[in-house]
Amino acid sequence: MPYFDAASSVPLHPVAREALVAALDEGWADPARLHSEGRRARMLLDAARETAAEAVGCRPDELVFTPSGARALHTGIAGALAGRRRTGRRLVVSAVEHSAVLHAAAAHEAAGGAVAEVPVSRTGRVAAADFGAALGEDTALACLQSANHEVGTEQPVTEVAEACADAGVPLLVDAAQSLAWGPTGGSWSLLAGSAHKWGGPPGVGLLAVRKGVRFAAPPPVDEREAGRAAGFENIPAIVAAAASLRAVRAGAEAAAARLRRLTDLVRSRVPELVPDVEVVGDPVRRLPNLVTFSCLYVDGEALLHALDRQGFSVSSGSSCTSSTLTPSHVLRAMGVLSEGNIRLSLSPSAGASAEEDVERFLDVLAETVREVRGQLGAAGGATGGATGGAAAEPRREQDDQEEPASAGSPAVTVDALGSLCPLPVIELAKAIGDVPVGGVITVLADDEAARVDIPAWCGMRGQEYLGADGTEFRVRRLN
Amino acid sequence: MPYFDAASSVPLHPVAREALVAALDEGWADPARLHSEGRRARMLLDAARETAAEAVGCRPDELVFTPSGARALHTGIAGALAGRRRTGRRLVVSAVEHSAVLHAAAAHEAAGGAVAEVPVSRTGRVAAADFGAALGEDTALACLQSANHEVGTEQPVTEVAEACADAGVPLLVDAAQSLAWGPTGGSWSLLAGSAHKWGGPPGVGLLAVRKGVRFAAPPPVDEREAGRAAGFENIPAIVAAAASLRAVRAGAEAAAARLRRLTDLVRSRVPELVPDVEVVGDPVRRLPNLVTFSCLYVDGEALLHALDRQGFSVSSGSSCTSSTLTPSHVLRAMGVLSEGNIRLSLSPSAGASAEEDVERFLDVLAETVREVRGQLGAAGGATGGATGGAAAEPRREQDDQEEPASAGSPAVTVDALGSLCPLPVIELAKAIGDVPVGGVITVLADDEAARVDIPAWCGMRGQEYLGADGTEFRVRRLN
Repeated sequence: MPYFDAASSVPLHPVAREALVAALDEGWADPARLHSEGRRARMLLDAARETAAEAVGCRPDELVFTPSGARALHTGIAGALAGRRRTGRRLVVSAVEHSAVLHAAAAHEAAGGAVAEVPVSRTGRVAAADFGAALGEDTALACLQSANHEVGTEQPVTEVAEACADAGVPLLVDAAQSLAWGPTGGSWSLLAGSAHKWGGPPGVGLLAVRKGVRFAAPPPVDEREAGRAAGFENIPAIVAAAASLRAVRAGAEAAAARLRRLTDLVRSRVPELVPDVEVVGDPVRRLPNLVTFSCLYVDGEALLHALDRQGFSVSSGSSCTSSTLTPSHVLRAMGVLSEGNIRLSLSPSAGASAEEDVERFLDVLAETVREVRGQLGAAGGATGGATGGAAAEPRREQDDQEEPASAGSPAVTVDALGSLCPLPVIELAKAIGDVPVGGVITVLADDEAARVDIPAWCGMRGQEYLGADGTEFRVRRLN
Repeated sequence: MPYFDAASSVPLHPVAREALVAALDEGWADPARLHSEGRRARMLLDAARETAAEAVGCRPDELVFTPSGARALHTGIAGALAGRRRTGRRLVVSAVEHSAVLHAAAAHEAAGGAVAEVPVSRTGRVAAADFGAALGEDTALACLQSANHEVGTEQPVTEVAEACADAGVPLLVDAAQSLAWGPTGGSWSLLAGSAHKWGGPPGVGLLAVRKGVRFAAPPPVDEREAGRAAGFENIPAIVAAAASLRAVRAGAEAAAARLRRLTDLVRSRVPELVPDVEVVGDPVRRLPNLVTFSCLYVDGEALLHALDRQGFSVSSGSSCTSSTLTPSHVLRAMGVLSEGNIRLSLSPSAGASAEEDVERFLDVLAETVREVRGQLGAAGGATGGATGGAAAEPRREQDDQEEPASAGSPAVTVDALGSLCPLPVIELAKAIGDVPVGGVITVLADDEAARVDIPAWCGMRGQEYLGADGTEFRVRRLN
């Protein structure tokens, strides 16, 4: 079954599997013990650290293994903030960091610290100048991802690292999405990664802290991993993680070229195949293996399930009906459509069938989107908006009682309160024809996603978004 | 090579290995994802949680998996303390808890909380009445291990749980050493364990929190594991951990009977084979697979290395020359000798060769101890103390200048400042013959272990320990 969710997790690389199975026999003992089994475990751990450090581009004694990428970020952020507490309590992050960074930032804020979020462009990229301007004198730490996990956009890490160096602020780079492809450029101070993103086993993150960076690991700590990652080391998994990182890197250049061709194909073909779609993320400065697009008038989760039934495993940054009920903070920060969002991410070690799988995906996508739109009452014509269908009908307060589309008529109001994404946008698209060009339509919507998707719809359809007041969104018809 | 350090870590159980290798193929995806790979991972995780919960004796929704036993303890303690912050900030622990508990307690104290340590008897056991008496009104949490990791003594968990229930205080049980043998008795509120102690893989701990226990996981948290263990779940290892716990439990009764015979043998034979030895821990209420003894006039690390050369992997609670430079807090709390400490712990799934291995160990032990004593200048006679040898000779300030052992002579002083364990005790044993019966000998020693070992030596040799004043230890010769 074609698996296009590598940015979440990838199957174990064959090298990782082999190393893991071997290390289960050799590396199960406590490396802190002095007996021969303990010494053997210690040797495996030391060797894995050297391998990983070489791939990361740091000294072995600067790198520790953590139980996950999230824990590496949590510890890295808390440790650097504590180490530089005397300088200040300001943490600067981009608005599109991984939730693990944002959770750590929220914990810092709850503990009395300050957090500044640097905005991104519509492609999801921070401007180095913006980032530099956010670095106040009281800044203890700055965090920037190497590349975004939802849209693939690469960040200007080298430039931001320079700005941080100029300001005397350490920069932590979340390199989770890019470590498979190569070392991280720029003079970063801390770096975090996660093995199951590059084909290593779950249960292994890594955290590098350059010598000279003030760092005080959050307690409780013990003597493991230089006092930076408490708890018994998972040596078999660590060995497998290091071995697979080296293996993946050896083939990275060729894989990147191959997968970039495929994601380029998706980027160019999807708007041709599917009406009312927005391909998001930087078209050039991006990960080779990841492509994201959003489809108007579609519930992302329904689309994901429909694709799953067709045999395609993808991910969605839409939250429409998901448990969190908030749209992806990445798409929101970019100001792009969040409804009907689909992310394809291909494994760095995807087999030769990847090309065929992507072609097949493109073959079924248009029909699948059309079906889901039909179920939601949005037939998805490429021109005028959504029409027809059987979805629950929100009330239109004016157009049932008055002459539709008559010049000088009062503004039309669509009441979509209580309707979840993408229904408010579908109703907006249906009703906009009821006001004359130059007229204003008001949408009442309390779904969080409407805040992202109504302006995004306006941008895509060439209508004018006039703003929101609470749950009241106003749009001027321009065409 | 006979491996007698099961209390640190045991080799992977065959069932764990099989489950792990299978789950590497089935359980690598993100269980939070909706595609088929994600759903399969979620099913494996749910099934493992049911299996583990059944073995622990709790509901599946009360149990989360953590990256290690230490993390389970850290999270359990911090979460319960935060959840009951309004009640008070007092944490009650036994003096012989695992260092992970003591580290969490230290972190709590550093953050302004209070910690009360309940002392233990010379066998390492708390009295339930003492524990109950330590539970003040402002107590947020109490922690007690099911059995001690260094000496095997079982704690009165059921009685302490009753005392805690009476006081309205939740009890966290560290069951790391006993989960292989059976569920934990008593109405505990929280429970922690570690898979690599029962034959599961490293990288998996478990934390159970009974419904109704106030709990606020330490931030940052995410949506994983009910918000109690951040970071991508290590599902293959979790599956293996649960499967092996069930397998080990199935054979636990037979294994316990077999290993108890072997540890009984060690307990009875070692004092016959080795002079000046103290077998420590409760002789009856103890783990079936663990036995600990301490040998006078021996550096534990040297003994460990000598046994390693003979092919035996053991552990030592002596710290004499180890990196931490403090003697085991467990042995110190018990008031027993820490020097020359050796712990044998047998794997619950030890093969049929375990009996033969233990017999061979007993065969070589006496000679090995004699050799190490000889190297340290303590020939190790069973009667009078240490004699002869080539170790650096501390200065004796009086007996070089005055009549030795003459009645009414001034007290003898041995200057062992700067000498590490076990040298101060060796010098004390050599010099005590220089004072008359009833006379007092003073030992100057600044090694931390002397504080434990000089009183312990007195107890073993029938001399009277008069106390210490800084680095000055005073002993009255009684025989």
